[in-house]
Parts: sequence; C-alpha cells; structure tokens
Amino acid sequence: MNTAQTSEIPHFPIYVGGEFKTTEQPVKIISSYSNLCVFQTCLGGQAEFEQAVQAACAVQTTMRDLPIFQRAQILMKIADLLRSEREKMGLIISLEASKPLKTALAEVDRSIQTFIISAEECKRLPGEVMSIDWIEAGANKDAIVKYFPVGVVAGIAPFNFPLNLVSHKVAPAIAAGCPIILKPASKTPIASLFLAQLIDQTSLPKGAFSVLPMNRKTGNQLVTDPRLNLLSFTGSPDIGWEMKKNAGKKKVILELGGNAGLIVEQDANIERAASKAVTGAFAYAGQTCIHTQRIYVHNDCFNKFLDLFKQGLSTLKIGAPEDPETDFSAMIDEKNAMRIEAWVNEAVSAGAEVIAGGTRKGNIYSPTILTNTRQEMKVCSLEAFAPIVIIEKFTNFKQTISAINDSDFGLQTGIFTHDNRKIHYAFQNLDVGGIIINDVPTFRADHMPYGGVKDSGLGREGPKYAIHDMLEAKVLVTDHTDCL
Amino acid sequence: MNTAQTSEIPHFPIYVGGEFKTTEQPVKIISSYSNLCVFQTCLGGQAEFEQAVQAACAVQTTMRDLPIFQRAQILMKIADLLRSEREKMGLIISLEASKPLKTALAEVDRSIQTFIISAEECKRLPGEVMSIDWIEAGANKDAIVKYFPVGVVAGIAPFNFPLNLVSHKVAPAIAAGCPIILKPASKTPIASLFLAQLIDQTSLPKGAFSVLPMNRKTGNQLVTDPRLNLLSFTGSPDIGWEMKKNAGKKKVILELGGNAGLIVEQDANIERAASKAVTGAFAYAGQTCIHTQRIYVHNDCFNKFLDLFKQGLSTLKIGAPEDPETDFSAMIDEKNAMRIEAWVNEAVSAGAEVIAGGTRKGNIYSPTILTNTRQEMKVCSLEAFAPIVIIEKFTNFKQTISAINDSDFGLQTGIFTHDNRKIHYAFQNLDVGGIIINDVPTFRADHMPYGGVKDSGLGREGPKYAIHDMLEAKVLVTDHTDCL
Amino acid sequence: MNTAQTSEIPHFPIYVGGEFKTTEQPVKIISSYSNLCVFQTCLGGQAEFEQAVQAACAVQTTMRDLPIFQRAQILMKIADLLRSEREKMGLIISLEASKPLKTALAEVDRSIQTFIISAEECKRLPGEVMSIDWIEAGANKDAIVKYFPVGVVAGIAPFNFPLNLVSHKVAPAIAAGCPIILKPASKTPIASLFLAQLIDQTSLPKGAFSVLPMNRKTGNQLVTDPRLNLLSFTGSPDIGWEMKKNAGKKKVILELGGNAGLIVEQDANIERAASKAVTGAFAYAGQTCIHTQRIYVHNDCFNKFLDLFKQGLSTLKIGAPEDPETDFSAMIDEKNAMRIEAWVNEAVSAGAEVIAGGTRKGNIYSPTILTNTRQEMKVCSLEAFAPIVIIEKFTNFKQTISAINDSDFGLQTGIFTHDNRKIHYAFQNLDVGGIIINDVPTFRADHMPYGGVKDSGLGREGPKYAIHDMLEAKVLVTDHTDCL
Amino acid sequence: MNTAQTSEIPHFPIYVGGEFKTTEQPVKIISSYSNLCVFQTCLGGQAEFEQAVQAACAVQTTMRDLPIFQRAQILMKIADLLRSEREKMGLIISLEASKPLKTALAEVDRSIQTFIISAEECKRLPGEVMSIDWIEAGANKDAIVKYFPVGVVAGIAPFNFPLNLVSHKVAPAIAAGCPIILKPASKTPIASLFLAQLIDQTSLPKGAFSVLPMNRKTGNQLVTDPRLNLLSFTGSPDIGWEMKKNAGKKKVILELGGNAGLIVEQDANIERAASKAVTGAFAYAGQTCIHTQRIYVHNDCFNKFLDLFKQGLSTLKIGAPEDPETDFSAMIDEKNAMRIEAWVNEAVSAGAEVIAGGTRKGNIYSPTILTNTRQEMKVCSLEAFAPIVIIEKFTNFKQTISAINDSDFGLQTGIFTHDNRKIHYAFQNLDVGGIIINDVPTFRADHMPYGGVKDSGLGREGPKYAIHDMLEAKVLVTDHTDCL
Repeated sequence: MNTAQTSEIPHFPIYVGGEFKTTEQPVKIISSYSNLCVFQTCLGGQAEFEQAVQAACAVQTTMRDLPIFQRAQILMKIADLLRSEREKMGLIISLEASKPLKTALAEVDRSIQTFIISAEECKRLPGEVMSIDWIEAGANKDAIVKYFPVGVVAGIAPFNFPLNLVSHKVAPAIAAGCPIILKPASKTPIASLFLAQLIDQTSLPKGAFSVLPMNRKTGNQLVTDPRLNLLSFTGSPDIGWEMKKNAGKKKVILELGGNAGLIVEQDANIERAASKAVTGAFAYAGQTCIHTQRIYVHNDCFNKFLDLFKQGLSTLKIGAPEDPETDFSAMIDEKNAMRIEAWVNEAVSAGAEVIAGGTRKGNIYSPTILTNTRQEMKVCSLEAFAPIVIIEKFTNFKQTISAINDSDFGLQTGIFTHDNRKIHYAFQNLDVGGIIINDVPTFRADHMPYGGVKDSGLGREGPKYAIHDMLEAKVLVTDHTDCL
Repeated sequence: MNTAQTSEIPHFPIYVGGEFKTTEQPVKIISSYSNLCVFQTCLGGQAEFEQAVQAACAVQTTMRDLPIFQRAQILMKIADLLRSEREKMGLIISLEASKPLKTALAEVDRSIQTFIISAEECKRLPGEVMSIDWIEAGANKDAIVKYFPVGVVAGIAPFNFPLNLVSHKVAPAIAAGCPIILKPASKTPIASLFLAQLIDQTSLPKGAFSVLPMNRKTGNQLVTDPRLNLLSFTGSPDIGWEMKKNAGKKKVILELGGNAGLIVEQDANIERAASKAVTGAFAYAGQTCIHTQRIYVHNDCFNKFLDLFKQGLSTLKIGAPEDPETDFSAMIDEKNAMRIEAWVNEAVSAGAEVIAGGTRKGNIYSPTILTNTRQEMKVCSLEAFAPIVIIEKFTNFKQTISAINDSDFGLQTGIFTHDNRKIHYAFQNLDVGGIIINDVPTFRADHMPYGGVKDSGLGREGPKYAIHDMLEAKVLVTDHTDCL
Repeated sequence: MNTAQTSEIPHFPIYVGGEFKTTEQPVKIISSYSNLCVFQTCLGGQAEFEQAVQAACAVQTTMRDLPIFQRAQILMKIADLLRSEREKMGLIISLEASKPLKTALAEVDRSIQTFIISAEECKRLPGEVMSIDWIEAGANKDAIVKYFPVGVVAGIAPFNFPLNLVSHKVAPAIAAGCPIILKPASKTPIASLFLAQLIDQTSLPKGAFSVLPMNRKTGNQLVTDPRLNLLSFTGSPDIGWEMKKNAGKKKVILELGGNAGLIVEQDANIERAASKAVTGAFAYAGQTCIHTQRIYVHNDCFNKFLDLFKQGLSTLKIGAPEDPETDFSAMIDEKNAMRIEAWVNEAVSAGAEVIAGGTRKGNIYSPTILTNTRQEMKVCSLEAFAPIVIIEKFTNFKQTISAINDSDFGLQTGIFTHDNRKIHYAFQNLDVGGIIINDVPTFRADHMPYGGVKDSGLGREGPKYAIHDMLEAKVLVTDHTDCL
Repeated sequence: MNTAQTSEIPHFPIYVGGEFKTTEQPVKIISSYSNLCVFQTCLGGQAEFEQAVQAACAVQTTMRDLPIFQRAQILMKIADLLRSEREKMGLIISLEASKPLKTALAEVDRSIQTFIISAEECKRLPGEVMSIDWIEAGANKDAIVKYFPVGVVAGIAPFNFPLNLVSHKVAPAIAAGCPIILKPASKTPIASLFLAQLIDQTSLPKGAFSVLPMNRKTGNQLVTDPRLNLLSFTGSPDIGWEMKKNAGKKKVILELGGNAGLIVEQDANIERAASKAVTGAFAYAGQTCIHTQRIYVHNDCFNKFLDLFKQGLSTLKIGAPEDPETDFSAMIDEKNAMRIEAWVNEAVSAGAEVIAGGTRKGNIYSPTILTNTRQEMKVCSLEAFAPIVIIEKFTNFKQTISAINDSDFGLQTGIFTHDNRKIHYAFQNLDVGGIIINDVPTFRADHMPYGGVKDSGLGREGPKYAIHDMLEAKVLVTDHTDCL
C-alpha cells in the first residue's frame, strides 16, 4: 500500500443499513508509527445513524425467524472470507493500529475462530423442557422455555483489537438473531469496515449489520436511543460506567480494563514463566485489557526470574508494525505514550526503580520493568495499557493474593505453581473473572467466559455467554386438562 | 388479635445485622379494610442502614464459604418454620394487606415452596467443565468455571405479596451465598419482619439477612450505595427504571408491572376459561402483576363466555379479609381505589361500557367488567392493579396478538385454544415473558422463569434464575505442559 | 466407470491398522440392478482382524490424549474431502447399493453433516462441576466429573446407507477419542473403503480406524473379543439381539428395524401429507429403518388422500440407479424381492387388497399399496424393508395410536394434525423413539437423538448421543481440609 | 428385641404387588455374630413372582402419568418415615448384617439422603429443546426431547448395605416413574421388608414396589423375564456378568466389586491419611465394594504411616454389632471368614508378611495388615471383601498408578497429595470410576456418579444417573410449514 498521495490512499466507505456510503465528513487514519495517513474513511452523521437504526428495526423479525442453518452458513461464510483475506486484513490491522504484523495476523486467526464458534453456538441456543407440576396447580401442565432475540444490539468497540473485539459483538448478534449497529474505535475503524465488505457478500439480511464511525455526540445515541435493546461496550472503565447510567431500559454489557497480576511461585518452571511473562507484558506494547502489569515472584527465585525476563525482553525486535519480524512497535498515539512516561516518572520520584526501559522516542515507549513500587502508584493501581511491567518479590502467598485483590479492577490473574492448596486458595479468594495456572493472565481462548468483576466490567463475553445475554427467555406453559 | 388499644397492638421490631431493634420512628400499620391499626413497627434510620450494610459486608466471606449442606439446612428449616406458623403468617398477611385469608394462606404455601426450591437449587449451582483446547494455544490446558456470590444484595419488595415476593429475593440470596438487606413495602412490612423472627431461629450467620422499613430517602441508598452489588426490585415501572439509572455499578433486576391479556378462542372449553378468568381478574382485587386485565373472546363464543363470567363474578363473596369465606376485599388504600374509579369514569366518558361493578365504597372497588374500550384508554394501556377487567370480542387471531403486543408492557399472556398453529404463532410473536395455554396469564409456578420484557422489567425471577443472577462466573484454566 | 472387464473394474483395498491391504479372499460387488460386477475388494481374515485390534489397542492412549482442536480438524477435514469427492462417492453408493443417484448424493450430504456435527460435539464433551458438600462428609471437598473414552469401538453397519450409517459410528468414535474397527455390510463395503482413503489423508493416528469386510465367523469376533469395549450395531433385529447376548462385558448399542406408522387426521394439509408419504414409502425402495410402512388416514379424507397418493406414486421414475432422473430402482437382492413378493401374496390370500403395484420383475418390486390388511399379516407386523405401504381408514384417534403400538417395534411415527390434544396424547402414549408432526416418520436430522424402543433397539444415535455412549464418567473428588 | 424363642422372633412378611404376604417357605435370619435367629421371613415362590410382575405391569401407565409433585411427596414421605424409624431400622441392619450399630445408623442416614436426592431429581428429569433446523430439511420445524420411564425395573441387592443399596434402586425407580421388583440379599432381607412397611404407608400406587426374597431359580427370572425392562444388579462380579448375558433385551446396570487402592505421597498429611485409611480398611469388616484394600505409601513416610495405622487399628473396639461402642464385628458368614483366612495363609506361604491380625475366631476375622505381597496373590488381585489391607512402599508415582491399574477391577482410588501434576496424571490415567484426593477410596456421597470400569461394572448409580438409565428418550419434531 502506497500512502504517498491522498488520491492513492485506500478509502473505505461506511456501511449503513446494508449500503456502503461516503459522507461529507472525511476521516484520515494516521499511523502512529510512521505518522503517515494509511487509510481514509468518513464519519456517519445523524442521517446515517437514523438509517442504521431504522434498518435494524425493520429487519428484526426477519432475523428472529432466520433458520439456524442460514445463520450458521452466514457465520461460516464470514470465517471463510476472513481466511481468504487473512493477509490483507492483517496488514490493515497492523497499519491502522501500529500492531506488529504477526500479532495482527494472530488476531485475524482468532477472529475466524470467533465466527466459527458463533456458528456452532447458534445451533445450540439455550432452551429448557421443565416439569411445571412440582405443585398441584401444575398438574396436567407442561412447560418449555425458549430464548428469543433481545432486539437491536448497539456495539461499541475499542482500538486495540479492531477486528476480534468487533467480532465478539457481531458474531454473537448474528447467532442470536439480533441486528447490530457497531461504532468502531475512531483510531482503528478500517478493520471493521473491511469486515463489512466481507459480510456484505454473505446472505445476511441487509440492515442486520451496520458499522459507522461517528463523533461522540452522534455515537452516544447508541447508549441513549430507546429503540436499541442492548448495549455491548468494550473500552475504558470511566466511559463504560457512565454509559451504564445513561442507557435507559437497555441491558448493558461492559468489558473494561484491568491491571492484571501474575504470581510466580518457587516450585514453578521459571524458564517457562519468564518467557510467557515477557509476551504477556509487551505484546502489542501492553495495550490489551489483560496485559501482564504486576508480577510477584517468590523471593527464592526472584533473581533467576528477573535475569531470564530481562534476557527475554532484550530479544524483542522493535520496528515498523508491518515488518513481519517486528515484536514491538509504537503505542496508539503520543498522548498515551506521554501519559505512561509521566506515570513512570512519578513512580520513580516516589521511590520506584527502573530496571529496563523507561524511555520514550515519539510514540514508542520502550519495554519497561519497574520494581520497588507501591500499591498506590498509578503504574500499580491504574490500568497502564502500556509496555510497562512491575516485578516485585514476595514470600507469603496469601498476602500476595490480597495485594492482587487490592485494586479497583478484577479481570484475570496468572499463577505459576503446582501446589493444589495454592490453586484452591487463589480460586476461592481472587476477585477476578479468570485465573490462569502456569500461564500468564494475558491468556484468552475466544470461547471461554471472559470478563471482569469490580470496575473491570459487567457480564461475560465469549460467544456462548454473549449470545445468552442477547436472548430473552419466554416460557410456554400448556394445560392439558382438556385432554383426549 | 385484639387491636382495640395501642398497647395491645402487636409490635414487630426491625431486624438489623442479626439484631431485633426498635427505633424512635414508630410506624402504625392500618388495615385498609377496617381502618384500624393492626400492627406496629418502626423505621430504620441512617444508623440502622449503616449497621445493616456493615454487617452484610462483614459476613460476605462466611456466606461464600458456607457449605452447601448448611445453606440447604437453613432454607429447609425456614420452610419448616413457615409451615408451623402458617396460620399466624396467613393472618398477618391478611390483616396488613387486606388480602382474603384463603389467598393469604395460599401465599404462605407458595413461600414455603420458594424456600424449598431454593434449598434444592443451592445444591445445583451452575458450573462447567470445558475443553479449552479448541485451539492450539489451549493444548495441555483444561478449564472449569465455577460461580461465586456476586456480593451483597439489596432487595426492595412490593406490598401485594408481602411474604412470597420477599421470599423470592431472600431465599435465592441465601442459596447463592449472598448477604441480603431487604426493604419491605411501607404498607406491608410485617410479614417480612415475622419472617425475620423465623430466620433468626436458624443457623444463618448473623448479618446475612436484615429487614428494615425505611423512608424513601434512607431506603434509596439501597440503590446508590456502592457497597451493595446487586439490586433486586419488584414494584412499579416508573420507580424501577429510575432506580436502574441511579444504581451505579450494580447489577439490576427489575420485576415490574403489566396489563396481562387473555385470548379465548372458539375451540376452547368456555366453562373452564370463564371460571379461571374470574379468578385471574379479581384475585386480591386485581392487585397482582399478572392480573388478567384484558380479555379477548372470539366472536362466536363471546356471549356464552360473558354470561359465565358474570355468573362467576356474582358468586364472589365480598367481606373482611380475615374471614375465611371472603373472596374479595378492600384495595390497599383509598388513593388507589380513587385512581381506578377515575380511570373507569374516564373510559366511560370516552365510550366504554360498564357491564358489572364500576362503583366504589371507601376502599372497596367492586369487581368491574368493561367493554367497548379502546387501546389508548388508561384501563387498557396502563397497569390497572385493581379489580377491573376489559372483555372484548375478536375474530382475527393474529390481529389480537398484535393488540396484546400494542402495549408498553410484556409480562404474561393466556390463551385458551387447542390449535397448535395458534399456539406456535403466539409463542413466536408475543412480546412477553410467559404464555399460558388453557389457563390465565395470572398463573405462576414459583420455580418457573418469571419476568417481563419491554417496560415490564429486566431479568427473570424463580429461584434458579434469581440465583444465577446473584452469581459471578470465575474460570480456572490450568496448563499441564509441565506434567509428569 | 467402465465395468466391462474385470481388469478394469475398480478395486478397493481394505484398511487395516492404517494400511491399505489386499488379501487372497477377493470379493466382487454385483449391482442388483444390472447384475454386473461394479467393484472389487477382498475379505479381511483372522490375521487382518488381529492386526486391526492390536493397532486399535496400541493407539488408545494417543487417541485419549489427542487435543480437541486436532480431533475437530480431522473431522472437518473428512467433511471437506467428502465434499470434494461428493460426485464420486455418490456414484459408488448408487452402484453398489442400487440407490438412485439423487438419493445417494443426499446421503453424501448427510454424511458430511454427520462429520461436521461430530467435530462440533467433540468440543462439547460432557463434564460436570458438582457440589459434593450436600452432606457434612463432603464439607471442604469439591468434585468434577470428566468423561473419558470407553476404549475400542466395534462398529457393524448395514447395507442401506453404506456411508452415512458408517459415519454415525466412525465420526462419534473419533470425537470421543475411541479407536474403531468397522465391519461394513457385505453387499455395500465400497463406500466405507473409499471413506478410508479419505480418512487416511488426515492426521488421524494410524490404527484409530480400520475397515474390513469379513465373513461372518471372523466378523463375529467384533462381538465376542474382550479387547473391544463397545459394540455399535445397526442392522436387523434378530442378529442384533443375538449379538447383545454374546457381547461379554461390552456396552452394546443396537439400531434395529421398525414398521413405522403414519396417521393423517382430517384437519391435515392432505396434499402435503400425500406428497411426503409417497417419499416416505418409496424412497430407496422402502429399504430404510424408518420407511413409512403403515398409513392410517381419517375416514373423512381417505379418498382424497388415496387419490393424491396414487397420483404421486405414478410419477415415480423407475430406472437405473446411476441415472440422475431415477426415483426408484432395484431392491438390494433377489432374495429380498422374492420375500416381499411372498408376503404380499400371503396378505392377499388372507383378504388384503392390492391398490397399486404388487408385481416383481427380477430385483425390482414395483411400488405397492395394500389395504384391508390385518395387524397379524407380515406386511403389517414385520419390518417390510421393501417398497410396500399399507393404507387404512380410521375414525378413532386413540385406537389408531393403540394400533401403532400393537407391534414389536417402536422406532418413529408420523402424524399430520394441528390439534394439540392429539399431539400431546400421541407424545405421551406412543411407544417409539420419535414422533414427527406434519411430516412422515421417515424424517431424520442427523443431530437428533435417533433410535427405537422395544425390539427396535437399545440406545440412541446422533453424534451427541453416540459420543456420550462412547464415554465413561470419572469423578474427581478433592478434599481441601489441609488448606492454606 | 428378644430373640430367645421362635414365637417371639420378629417376623417380616414379604411385599408383593402392594400386599404383605407370608408363604409356606419360611426363612430364618441368623446373626453371624451370635449365631442366634434374629428375624423371620419367608421366600416368594413362582406365584408371588408372577403376582409381582403382573402388578408392576398393570401400574406402569399410572406411574408414568404420576405428577411430579406426587412422586416427590412420596419420596419425601419415605425419607420422613425412615427418620422416624431410624433407631429401629439401624438395629435391624445391625442384627441381620452383623454391622456395628453406629455404622448401621450411618447407613440409615445415607438412605434418607438417597430418598431426598431422588425426590429432588424427579423434579429435574432431563429434557431438551433443540433446534432441528441445522439443515434445510429442518426449516420450519422445531423439536423437543422428553424422557419417559423405561418400564418395569428388576432390582437385585447385596447383603452389605441392606437398606441403602436397596434405596439406590427403589428411590430412582419411583422418581423415574418405573415400577420396581426387588430381590433383597438372602442373608439380609429384613431392612428392605421393613422399608416396604414404610413405603406402604405412602400414596405410592400399589404394585409399583414389591420386595420378595426368592431362591436363586425363582429370582433368576428377574434376569430373564421379558416383561421386565431394566435389570439393576449390585453384587459380585461373576454373577453380574453372567446376568448380563442372560438378560435378553433388557438394559443392564451392574455395580460390582473392586480392590480399591490408596496412594500416600510424601507431601501428605500423614496423620490424617492414616486415620482415614483405618476406617477405609476396616469399616464393616472390609465388606464394602470400595473397601481400602491396597495401600501404597511413599518410602519416605512409610514407617510413620505404618506406625500411625497400627496405632489406629489397635483402638478399634471389637464386639457385638448392636453395641453402640463397637467398631468391628463378625463377617457375614463363616464361609467368607474361612475364605479370607485361606487367602492370607496362601499369601504368607508365598512370601507375604502379616504385620497385624491374621487370625480367625469363628466368624470374626481380625483386622489384618499384610506387606511384602505380590500383585498375583489373591489378597491383591481379587476382591477381598474382608478386613484385610495390604500396605506397601513405593518411590515412583507413575509406576504406582500402573500397579493400581494392573487389576481386573476399576472402582475407586484414593490419593493423598497436594501436587497438581500428580493429581492430573492420576485423573488422566487411572482406569477407575472415581478418584478421591486426600481421602480414602471408600468415600462415597450418595448423589455422586458411582460405579466402576473393567470388571467392576457397567453404568453409574447415584440417583441422577440411575434415573437417567431408567428413562428412554422420545423426540417430538413438529413441522410448522402450515402456519398461520
């Protein structure tokens, strides 16, 4: 892709009610690595928002009645098209998000999985046959419960996984039989607009999927418009919780951030732990919800771990995102790079020590290790969303569990140990959505229930769980007193 | 119970953090039938609210770790105590709510069921063994999902089922391992205060259940206090939806009102339909969420149905609630009696016809049949919560389904028919939470999923469903690469 | 495929422990339509049987430990290969089974489904998280149940669906992690030998699948050999029940025959009923387990139905199986054609009337309608497995249900009606495995639970159900008294 | 109970088709401890067998249609009656089985649990709502699966738990809606005859439960009679597997024996392990299927464990079964006491060493520890069903797992360890039905899936699992093409 001249920069129209459109509010997507414009698109305005909502409402009954085999065919077809366009989609993600190409391709592969899983799950929508005659008033009656689409879904996606976190809203919605209107992240809308081009080739009823970048004011109607029945938001905590307040009668699903912890016990495989932890800390410059931010290493293996970790860090290849060899590249924008720089400096002023990194070159913040931190420092207590990691010693397992719980967030925690007592204690006592034994908290399989407690969110994603939230139970009780 | 002198009127203390207390804000419970004071209690103030919250938070871990056999024992013990105190509890409900005694006793029986069901369901909390190796990154890993208590539950209950709708919050909370603080209805707090006396006799950890009447300002903290993790409200739509807005980061479950419809098709057993419909329309003077408010009868059997219905209505024995023969008594207060009087008059002015009833004597509004109504009249479109019923003719089934859907509410609908095509059409197309074939929409078995769509609420009750909402998924993924 | 000279007749080797082999016991497959040899293969002898068993046993642990993503990949790959070879596989089935090509191609499509369903189901093997602390002795303990492969599966398949009924054993076995040794029908082994060529191209561990035609004595060891842990047999009742007796400690699954009934009520869509019934009665010359054998039509619509049915019958195109236009062709062999001829003649002698057909030309027995039959005639009471159908009048629904139950068999029943009372009565009272409302008993979706009661079998197929039978529960209880 | 004179010895009639009967084949129950006659009853003959079968068949439809609330009431009523008669039932078991009274009372408590669990499970019979439109042929169709009673159940029970192992057949049968005919053990029929007296007081339809001691020839018809649809046998392996062969078309569930192993790793809590192991080895003189027969202790803690175990053994109080202090009493008969004496002697001759016990006084075989045994000795490889235990050293965990698997049986195994790698390895590799971490293999909670692999049985008990086996799936597919 040559990005030298505007006329040659690829332009992606928005997708509204089944039509590709270009509005008079052009948007340029600038690479945070190269500072070049890499893509062009435009914003949807009030008219486009209204068209999308009306199309979604109009297609609701069609979607509800769409036979399962057609839903599954559509979802599998999207997966097939993504497979065909894997390289192109990977490059798009890489360029718009400054994500190393190999990481971007892995995201495409995960998105394919997300569509396949949703295709399979739509065949297995919940349903119950229940005995209603537990009581005399129920004698001669039987009952079943079926689950029907909740209505129109509003999806709002973050910049960091421009394809897969969009897929985690779109695929379940199609599976559940819900039309969906998606607002992509303003910095990375292109992957979802390209996805729209693929979806448009399937037999998904037009209007069942719209994707349009919008300014905040227009987009906020996804939260407030009463014609939309469920809001699924992935993004930053403050914005998410404010949306919950303003969402009216809608169901609200929030996937927000965290400051994930990792514990490495003395009985662990230290080599493996260190190697996994480097990836957990620095993949996509730490810009993932389950970025490994806080590592607690048992005193007896601290030095060994730290040496191995530093060694691992030193092998990371820093470079242009689209270079297939690159492991590490620019952050999403300078504002964030400067933010993390300030947090680190603040921590250092307060006594923290920088073991590696700690420098910024434009949008690139170097992979950074901190130690001697305290819980109240921003680098510990807030979501860093940046390539920094805290590594601290510990001796008491239970206190370390408390330290991890001493946070407003509760997404995932990793623990390296083989001691079943510790595993049990952690499972009982950690206030998080997921615990990963012998791997980093950054592990996610797309079919598992994923989401956090406390400020980290409300509800769980993963197609089976997301689909369930997009459905509404309806019970059918039948009295057979007048039988043959 | 002699209610002649204040000193002799039974007084029920409030129950805060495991202690029975009397505050300096006395409350008199006045029978709407006799206008006599029948019970005394008091309001909890800020101090009591704070005590309840702190006790609930303090007991959270104990409740989470309470073995299942103890939870089940506690719940079964409550059921046993309710069985022993059936007559006394029935009389309390009857007197405070002006509910006919036989209806009140039926409520006690249902509440016993609710506790038994919850005892059984706590043995069957959800949990999943899942293959995590759907993808190569999951190889050598396994995973389970367990569900943990969501935290402290805030319950707010309505006046009409002072025991059983309270039980639908308390019993699931105990089963789920959640402490609960309950605000009973200001008009009917005594049943739940008596329930507290029974619960106090069990081994439920103190602090896990508090019940305190509060004024609106104090009580509103159940909605806003961030230490409470889930709000379960049953009551009127306006209040419920406002609470959702103010609930902060809490999960919110709303069980609100409806204007339930009933369709009687020509192939129905008309005698049975009419008999059931009289009960559906006038039980507890129509003051139930699933009160049969709108009846559509096929043209070909309209007259027969109406005759039988009027006949049924005429046999209702109107009288004092505590009289075991009484079928029908006063509404909860004069304000509501006057409200429904005004609505009926307004409907009549606009062309509706009163076939029976339509008169008010103090708090008693006579069982009333209206016809020739139009959708936009309040008696049709709003929740009557009063002993009135609309009976209209129809000829086209599908149009009648549309008429029922033409409402802000969607709780339950009854249909008398044997035609499977109509049943299927109704199940697919009615926007409600439950459809009852060959019985009235007023049917509810306490273990079934119960709740509405549209303005009628958010979420489902029924212990299994309520427990599920009071739990939070936690996944445990274990990597076995370092195996033996 | 030119079948003129032996040297040119396609030869398919057998597949033993991952090797394609040719033995010195050649077998010619003769078309029952053309009486020409269409394929060649050979019998496995004692050595090959032993090799297959040893290879299966040797690969057991590998199969048990095969990650789910690999099992799913293998199954999806088989589905893909079948899709690529659809035309060739269809022709093979058509030629070896004298099955009309369009029916044979439909079988290939169903087989593809069977592999896809199994791929999906292997991701969803059962598993339970259970509270073990329902009793005090369980306090501090938790428990999970996982399901492990039962061991080596022996599969024995019938001639009528040489691919899909084989797939219903092979695909679940792979999904469950069980090696499988398959004995195909002696008349139609080629489809499964060609399937072996496809499976061999996947990464299924060698030895996990063997397919070898055997003479009865050798093959009977699949029943008696104690190294095999589960026997899954589809075929004729007498043979199946005898196998159960001789199966030693094995689990046994039997899918046997039936004499399926169909009821057409007066409220039915008669056109649709007649059209579906013609297919149900004569597809593959009635040689399916759920062939529509006995039709009961309400007196009031009997003549109309019969006229439409005869009309439908008259449009069936009889011809060579490989001709794409053919609807109806030869039976599997002359023995069976002569058997059904004798049964019909016997029925006629006893008073039955032939309305259509009733003639035999070699192996082709014409599509035949009988009426005025009695329950005890072979054409009613035994499994016809031939293109004959009984059509009788009825007036009393309940008696007709009894008539259908008055049979040694109980596989499936069809009923055309919209009356929910009749549907309910039938569902409660029919002793069968499946009831199909508004379609013929011949309906089967490959994912539904399929199988019969009484003499029709033991257990259910359909991948989810078959997989479950191929698994063995193992509970893991862990005591945490010595916790941190 | 005074047992001095025949005329005063309590006599229990048999229970046939709802009638208590005495036949002319009297039976005396002789205590193996006191050699006195403690109870009298009689054998059912051919006439009684026939009456029981006919009554069971006659009541089949009634049982199938029995509303759930009535099934649950009956089961809870039995539990209540057992609670009322706990002391009497305990004494009966103690006397007829020579079971220490405290162990007998624990059995009564477990039996109460078994009935309660079944009451709860009958409310939760399986059922499925499934999408049938995974394929185009399923469009416009929906489907449910309900489970119906399999028919009449034949139950055959062993002597060692005369009440609870009977309850594990009777309670699930009632829950499933199946009539059941029970043959109790010839040595211990009284508990089940007393149970019949309790059940007779409930509203269980007469004929749904019969219990009759029979001689082997009469009783064998429970295996062979084609009117019985399921055989559930608990007892010795040889007899069980022979029954499977002769059971005709019946489903067969076998709960047979084992030679359960226990591994004690060096990281275990040795005190707890030794204490639990003494109970596992000697409770009811080792006469339980999951008797702890083979203990493997890690070399590093072997001496400590052995010392503690011997100490525990030495505190066992040997005495009369009905004495509340007794821990250990006579074996069921002299034949078995002599058998185990011979096995031990044989082992000693072959090199084994007796560390404790090894002596016989009449029917009392002293609690015995053996070491230096070899796998092929009967005390290792066969089911001892006697108060002996093998204790051996080990150093290699994986080899010890192999040693446990090197057995014809596979019921349960206990392991004391906290190492998650070992737990995982054991769970994957042990060929048993259950693994108990940090407790003995003798642990069983009555609701868990219980049963063995290899020669130890076929199928699982535990009410939920037993009920499932007593049900038969029936699918209802409905086509809605002719919709409104």
